Amino acid sequence: MRSGISASEALAAVLEATPVLGSETLALSDALGRVLAEAVASDRTLPPLDNSAMDGFAVRRADCAGAGPEAPVVLPVAFEVPAGASDVSDLAPGQAARILTGAPVPSGADAVVRQEDTKRTGDRVAIHVVPDPGEHIRRAGEDVQRGETVLTAGTRLGPAHIGMLSSLGRSIVAVHQRPRVAILSGGDELVEPDGDVAGGRIVSSNSWSIAAQCRELGAVPVYLGIARDTPSDLEARFRAGLAADVIVSSAGVSVGDRDYVRDVLEKIGCRLHFWGVKMKPGYPLAFGRVGDDERGPLVFGLPGNPVSAMMTFEQFVRPALLRMGGRRDLYRPIVRARLDETLRKKPGRMHFVRVTLERDGSTVVARSTGNQSSGVLKSMIRAQGILLFAADAEELPAGSVADVQVIDPDFLAADAPGF
Amino acid sequence: MRSGISASEALAAVLEATPVLGSETLALSDALGRVLAEAVASDRTLPPLDNSAMDGFAVRRADCAGAGPEAPVVLPVAFEVPAGASDVSDLAPGQAARILTGAPVPSGADAVVRQEDTKRTGDRVAIHVVPDPGEHIRRAGEDVQRGETVLTAGTRLGPAHIGMLSSLGRSIVAVHQRPRVAILSGGDELVEPDGDVAGGRIVSSNSWSIAAQCRELGAVPVYLGIARDTPSDLEARFRAGLAADVIVSSAGVSVGDRDYVRDVLEKIGCRLHFWGVKMKPGYPLAFGRVGDDERGPLVFGLPGNPVSAMMTFEQFVRPALLRMGGRRDLYRPIVRARLDETLRKKPGRMHFVRVTLERDGSTVVARSTGNQSSGVLKSMIRAQGILLFAADAEELPAGSVADVQVIDPDFLAADAPGF
Repeated sequence: MRSGISASEALAAVLEATPVLGSETLALSDALGRVLAEAVASDRTLPPLDNSAMDGFAVRRADCAGAGPEAPVVLPVAFEVPAGASDVSDLAPGQAARILTGAPVPSGADAVVRQEDTKRTGDRVAIHVVPDPGEHIRRAGEDVQRGETVLTAGTRLGPAHIGMLSSLGRSIVAVHQRPRVAILSGGDELVEPDGDVAGGRIVSSNSWSIAAQCRELGAVPVYLGIARDTPSDLEARFRAGLAADVIVSSAGVSVGDRDYVRDVLEKIGCRLHFWGVKMKPGYPLAFGRVGDDERGPLVFGLPGNPVSAMMTFEQFVRPALLRMGGRRDLYRPIVRARLDETLRKKPGRMHFVRVTLERDGSTVVARSTGNQSSGVLKSMIRAQGILLFAADAEELPAGSVADVQVIDPDFLAADAPGF
Repeated sequence: MRSGISASEALAAVLEATPVLGSETLALSDALGRVLAEAVASDRTLPPLDNSAMDGFAVRRADCAGAGPEAPVVLPVAFEVPAGASDVSDLAPGQAARILTGAPVPSGADAVVRQEDTKRTGDRVAIHVVPDPGEHIRRAGEDVQRGETVLTAGTRLGPAHIGMLSSLGRSIVAVHQRPRVAILSGGDELVEPDGDVAGGRIVSSNSWSIAAQCRELGAVPVYLGIARDTPSDLEARFRAGLAADVIVSSAGVSVGDRDYVRDVLEKIGCRLHFWGVKMKPGYPLAFGRVGDDERGPLVFGLPGNPVSAMMTFEQFVRPALLRMGGRRDLYRPIVRARLDETLRKKPGRMHFVRVTLERDGSTVVARSTGNQSSGVLKSMIRAQGILLFAADAEELPAGSVADVQVIDPDFLAADAPGF
């Protein structure tokens, strides 16, 4: 087990140990946002037939020669083709057929004239334009050819993918499983939100923020409750989490006498990869895996301070959970931001500074959210970004530019639609 | 009713008619992503007591005068303060107290020396540093003062907010309701995904993509199925949607004979605000509201072509649904992108061009997804952005720069964590 490693060494160790989960088969209505675990080929041609893109009249172009706004060609309307028609007559020379959007183009027709360019009187229609070849006809197979691979494994399913899968008749799809994350917190001072806080007790808020962090990225939290500060209770709760893909424990990973976590982890067969990352907040982060093969759950022992717990989840657990679910884009958007104030620290640990972000023309201005104590959850509430202050750096002067991970998606939203 | 209006006129009309929905009361575990409908004040002080930020020893600074790495001050360890302790002794002059992270600081102590800077032998501890005043002590109220308004109405709840609400004992919160969206499609050629597509029938994929678009932004789709092309069936399905906040119908808004939608809308008391927007894809978009007061559902009649339906939802229904749910950030992120090819069109309609996006150093390059036919759903699957080609423009030359709405959130994800 390593100790006192850098944040990037820690992330590399986590990702190296993180498997992509296997697949599950879902109803299409439940598949939004999930990652395809199969390639999808089409069993059909789309559209299935040449069909009309407009309401209007199917014609033979040759019959419209010379037509113009003031000089219509008048044709008899031989029949009508509604959408969904299955038995369509052929269009003979010198005829027009009334046709609706989506309806199959009759054999013989080579263009559709839209209704706005015609004038119908009884069973005859005046055509006022010469259509281009194939105009307003959607060709069979224009969208999808039979046998074509339409979606590849690894594709994240957005609304257009769901629509496409439905149009291929795929009401069931195979996607990567969502990671199940067992969450426990430990400490005799902790109560649930409805608990009595007399005598300095506090709510086990880490479990709530961590469960929400899991939900936000599509993982399934399984909350195992508050462990009392005894080895037996802690062990029982860890064992209850062994069926999950990941166990996240907050508290119990610092150096104090009552931190039995290490012993308990050993008892349940967890091999630790590292303990202690040169970062602030969040130094006392532990990571390991239960068992020797790829099947045991990953174990993250997060620090107990509210901000440290959220920050270490954000930097290490989040990318691991995304990868487990088959995602390839594991990281937050990064903006280059101008510092509004000078930041100073001792070299040695990388600082993850909670900042607000504001646009100033084309630049982004970052300001510390204030008290950066790892106990001050309010700094996390206000934070729109996490400014990266490198381990060996000592000063970031006001006006200098730094990378900021954007954690507030609303910051990226535009103020106007662009039109 | 207006017709042939611009996209921005259409959006303004939609948003003017869109109410913010009322509140509902939710368990905290269901509130992630929702918008607070109440201000939340704290009934408690957080942290409740001065407590230790580290495992170590509580001391009086005066007793540590002159301590250094080679010259420790040795103090007796008078007692121990575990986390969650409620009855803590006072620290007398000349004493140290063993203290764990989160445990209350004993009266009399004015700093905590972290364990790493001490060496304990039996009931005595050697202190190797002189702590700063208050060092490693988290002050009562440092995070939240009793009575303080911690969250304001209108706040979107992220993981940190959920954690904070839990720490305030708020296991129940009032948030804005999610809009319920009744979805129907119409056309005799349509079947469900498990239906028989012989004879040129196609799947009613619009309902599936629209339902997914609703889910993606947190709205609740209520799928009313496929209406046959008869006025009575269409009317029955529209009436089934009257209890929803929004009705979205795809198909049945073009000019054809069988488009009974207008008559049906009139029958159910829908007053149309506009019909026809100068855009491509998506011209035949209709918008109105049922009833004269603010209680009737909004009605969107989307065009039937798959891309037109998704695009008009994206531009008009999406911002309306976000506003209904209490959101203030209604628009996609916009990037300025360099065009990889020349785009041309006739003036008159604004074009929403589906593009892929690629980073080239600090610039973003946009490429058309190819066939921009409104029937080609594949163009929507590939699209990472929607390039805005203004109504009165005729050409966007290769190399020029245009605004692109980013619809693929993964495009914004960074390739690396930034450290």
